[in-house]
Amino acid sequence: MPATAQQRQTSAVPQTGEAARRAIRRGDWTGPTSGLAPGYVQGNLAILPAALASDFMRFCQLNPKPCPLLAAGAPGDPHLPSLGNDLDIRTDVCRYKVYRNGELIDEPDDITEHWRDDLVIFALGCSFSFEDALLQDGIELRHITNRTTVPMYRTSIQTTPAGPFHGPLVVSMRPLKPADAIRAVQITTRFPAVHGAPVHLGMPELIGIKDIMKPDWGDPPDMHSDEMPVFWACGVTPQSVVMTMKPEFCITHYPGRMLVTDRKNSEFAIM
Amino acid sequence: MPATAQQRQTSAVPQTGEAARRAIRRGDWTGPTSGLAPGYVQGNLAILPAALASDFMRFCQLNPKPCPLLAAGAPGDPHLPSLGNDLDIRTDVCRYKVYRNGELIDEPDDITEHWRDDLVIFALGCSFSFEDALLQDGIELRHITNRTTVPMYRTSIQTTPAGPFHGPLVVSMRPLKPADAIRAVQITTRFPAVHGAPVHLGMPELIGIKDIMKPDWGDPPDMHSDEMPVFWACGVTPQSVVMTMKPEFCITHYPGRMLVTDRKNSEFAIM
Repeated sequence: MPATAQQRQTSAVPQTGEAARRAIRRGDWTGPTSGLAPGYVQGNLAILPAALASDFMRFCQLNPKPCPLLAAGAPGDPHLPSLGNDLDIRTDVCRYKVYRNGELIDEPDDITEHWRDDLVIFALGCSFSFEDALLQDGIELRHITNRTTVPMYRTSIQTTPAGPFHGPLVVSMRPLKPADAIRAVQITTRFPAVHGAPVHLGMPELIGIKDIMKPDWGDPPDMHSDEMPVFWACGVTPQSVVMTMKPEFCITHYPGRMLVTDRKNSEFAIM
Repeated sequence: MPATAQQRQTSAVPQTGEAARRAIRRGDWTGPTSGLAPGYVQGNLAILPAALASDFMRFCQLNPKPCPLLAAGAPGDPHLPSLGNDLDIRTDVCRYKVYRNGELIDEPDDITEHWRDDLVIFALGCSFSFEDALLQDGIELRHITNRTTVPMYRTSIQTTPAGPFHGPLVVSMRPLKPADAIRAVQITTRFPAVHGAPVHLGMPELIGIKDIMKPDWGDPPDMHSDEMPVFWACGVTPQSVVMTMKPEFCITHYPGRMLVTDRKNSEFAIM
């Protein structure tokens, strides 16, 4: 796997999910988790009160491409043993965002003080896993080459609503040569648990993207003349949906600081 | 499977490969074979002298996308038992084209008189099989809707040469909505024995196609504004290559009159 910026910075990069979580828990790792524990699944995090949990879980099931549910916790339980034996969600992510009624109230590096008996953890697959598979196949991912953030766009495609959860699909975009786009469809189809195949390619206007150079999140793309935009459902979708409905209380990971698990990306390949 | 024009014309359409070949052998079926024996593999046919056979077989192996070899015969043997127990290539295709030194010398409905002790049969997969899979998935194929011939183009992509066989890749094009193009990549990837996944999509100029409305073979496309061109390697490639090198002797099927086999399309799905 090509080394990422983070990997090149230090020779002491934790190589397993468990080692990564321990380094994070000790405060030895505070930066973006890209390149940490290569080959291990990293996840998007959403923590919601139990009163909203069943609707949110239903929302994930109805919208598996933007919201591929890796694991959900029991109410009040800060552990997710299916993703890591020792995993404690209160301490094992570098940085969090804590919202009350949709307002950001804190960005702590530990949520022990915010924990409540009714909170439910949701860990959702993230694009790092399929990007890993694309890089291993020799496909260049421009935002990684350029060390920028992948561009993300709000689309005109609506998610399927569940209870109070509703809103547009958010997509991430990677410019690829047509033959690589075809290969990328093949590769990412193998990983439905981490967004799976693209939802769209070429012609951004057909999904409501007016200006490809003006993403709603991330950096503007660096797209060559022999490349087409390829769009994947993005884990920002559930975050965007949750923020829109302004839940009484909610915690997410800080962008780029994901939950690192003990599961291998290869475990999630369906063939 | 949606009924094709041919199926709708008559209720006496043979439903199996064997029944189709018998009807052809008796002269009861003389038209295009599209829609005949639904679900059974149909093949492109090339018959060459043994002196050229090993180079041609190597050409097929080097270029599996345009030349997916279903079966090759023994020198002088007009049978291909792996594709049909009773199959006799001299009588079992509706119409043939016979070439001497690259010149068309006959278009018979039987090649018994042309048969020689040194001829080798090559049966190559054809797009009917993957089109069947696309139609079954509910993807509209415009040239079938419009009852026209799929547009085909000579590209700037070169095949890998073998002995005297060399020349450009020929592709067929089907206009599809982006989401259908992604689905089509997934579906046709399952069928490497019948051209497999597309070789290109969008941006025809990148593969040397100057005017998409002017195909080198077939009818101009009917492409809607929300569709992109999707290109598959085409079985016309080996025919074009063979014609270019002007073999001393060669027989092919007449366009649209394919070899109907006893093998099911589903047998060739790799998963």
